Amino acid sequence: MIKICIIGSGNVAQHLITTFQNLEKSVNEIELIQVFARKKENLVHLLPLEKITDDFNTLVEADLYFISVSDDAIATVSEKLPFKNRLVVHTSGSMPFNILCNHNRKGVFYPLQTFTKGKAVNFKEIPICIESENSTDYKVLERVAKMISNAVFAINSEQRKALHVAAVFVNNFTNHLYAIGKTICEENQIPFEILKPLIKETISKLENLTPNQAQTGPAIRNDQKTIEAHEAFLENENQLNIYKILTQSIQDNGKKL
Amino acid sequence: MIKICIIGSGNVAQHLITTFQNLEKSVNEIELIQVFARKKENLVHLLPLEKITDDFNTLVEADLYFISVSDDAIATVSEKLPFKNRLVVHTSGSMPFNILCNHNRKGVFYPLQTFTKGKAVNFKEIPICIESENSTDYKVLERVAKMISNAVFAINSEQRKALHVAAVFVNNFTNHLYAIGKTICEENQIPFEILKPLIKETISKLENLTPNQAQTGPAIRNDQKTIEAHEAFLENENQLNIYKILTQSIQDNGKKL
Repeated sequence: MIKICIIGSGNVAQHLITTFQNLEKSVNEIELIQVFARKKENLVHLLPLEKITDDFNTLVEADLYFISVSDDAIATVSEKLPFKNRLVVHTSGSMPFNILCNHNRKGVFYPLQTFTKGKAVNFKEIPICIESENSTDYKVLERVAKMISNAVFAINSEQRKALHVAAVFVNNFTNHLYAIGKTICEENQIPFEILKPLIKETISKLENLTPNQAQTGPAIRNDQKTIEAHEAFLENENQLNIYKILTQSIQDNGKKL
Repeated sequence: MIKICIIGSGNVAQHLITTFQNLEKSVNEIELIQVFARKKENLVHLLPLEKITDDFNTLVEADLYFISVSDDAIATVSEKLPFKNRLVVHTSGSMPFNILCNHNRKGVFYPLQTFTKGKAVNFKEIPICIESENSTDYKVLERVAKMISNAVFAINSEQRKALHVAAVFVNNFTNHLYAIGKTICEENQIPFEILKPLIKETISKLENLTPNQAQTGPAIRNDQKTIEAHEAFLENENQLNIYKILTQSIQDNGKKL
């Protein structure tokens, strides 16, 4: 039995709480014994009040502590833990391993996903990136990670930093391009719905092709006439700049292939 | 019975040929009577040789002619048609309606999708944007479009231009961001597979949220520390420029909300 304690009440913390609680019922190997939240009321919809504490000094003994708080608070929280030599991990994609206080054994348990409060996610499909100081701790993290996900990866801090940057490109930035697409549609009385099958097909292609193989459009086929027409169409300077830099990047990248 | 003739042998033409042939079997309302290809051999895997011509002067009489060739060739092809006052449409997203020769009745039949040769698509889910000179022709186009798709939209040439630009943002450009994500992963010995669930979830969110509501990441939460760390990480000048311009755009857009 692996006893787990989660510190935090944000998006990731809440998804982990729900997942571990469901797991307790199906697998008799782990137990979520306590959660720390600065405001207990943030979590009462998820678990019984007696399992929630707002006082670091009342933290009970566990085999694994998750610090799932905002990046800026991880170091401070790890210093406040009133015990030593226990396994403490954070769940951040962008923070290095050694931001955690030296009093305890350090690790990272980073679920690579974009979490929205209230929107259920299937943890089975979420890659979990784990890292630890020693191989015994790694095995514990791996065991827990494999209970909740089918995609567990050993990723060190340097790789995790790269992964987080890559995630910004494929998630945050693509989502912003959807926002721009929606704006252009709405300014021309076109329902954004019309673009959704295209968006889905863009992803679907990645099942069999690399992004470079799947690249289509005026930039990759050097269709200068269409590019100029599009640039003339875009009155918004910001949209025009984004159009130009991404068109150029596609063309430069194409030359390298 | 609507008799159809397709001029062209490229990606879109081939997908239309396959779709109409399948439709002939299930619905007794249309007939693909002839296809024009400069090189007949490009189409022999799709339909019997006697249905293919490489001579404009042997084009038979039909109710509807599709010009499905590269944008640059549409005008020339429409001028070569050896008949008058018939309904002729092109299938391009970026070309205006009136690029077609005045000898015939003009229309547009634009399936908004990214087609890959050999990769089957389900036309039922592909939005078809139609436009015509008069309402009688519009009804013919609408009837044919509704036979193959559940999503038929009346889109005029100005709107179609906007739509095509928007499509470049949500398809071509997002795909290029996947390519960058893959490059960053590979440079750090991380399998690109690890990002795919995140990519899928980014799309999945759009079912219930607008892109602006779904926006997450360091840019929208003004997490300057993470942004600076990412910028320091990106050694590739092009990737860095894209990072900066999209981060700025997310932040400016966020302020407007």
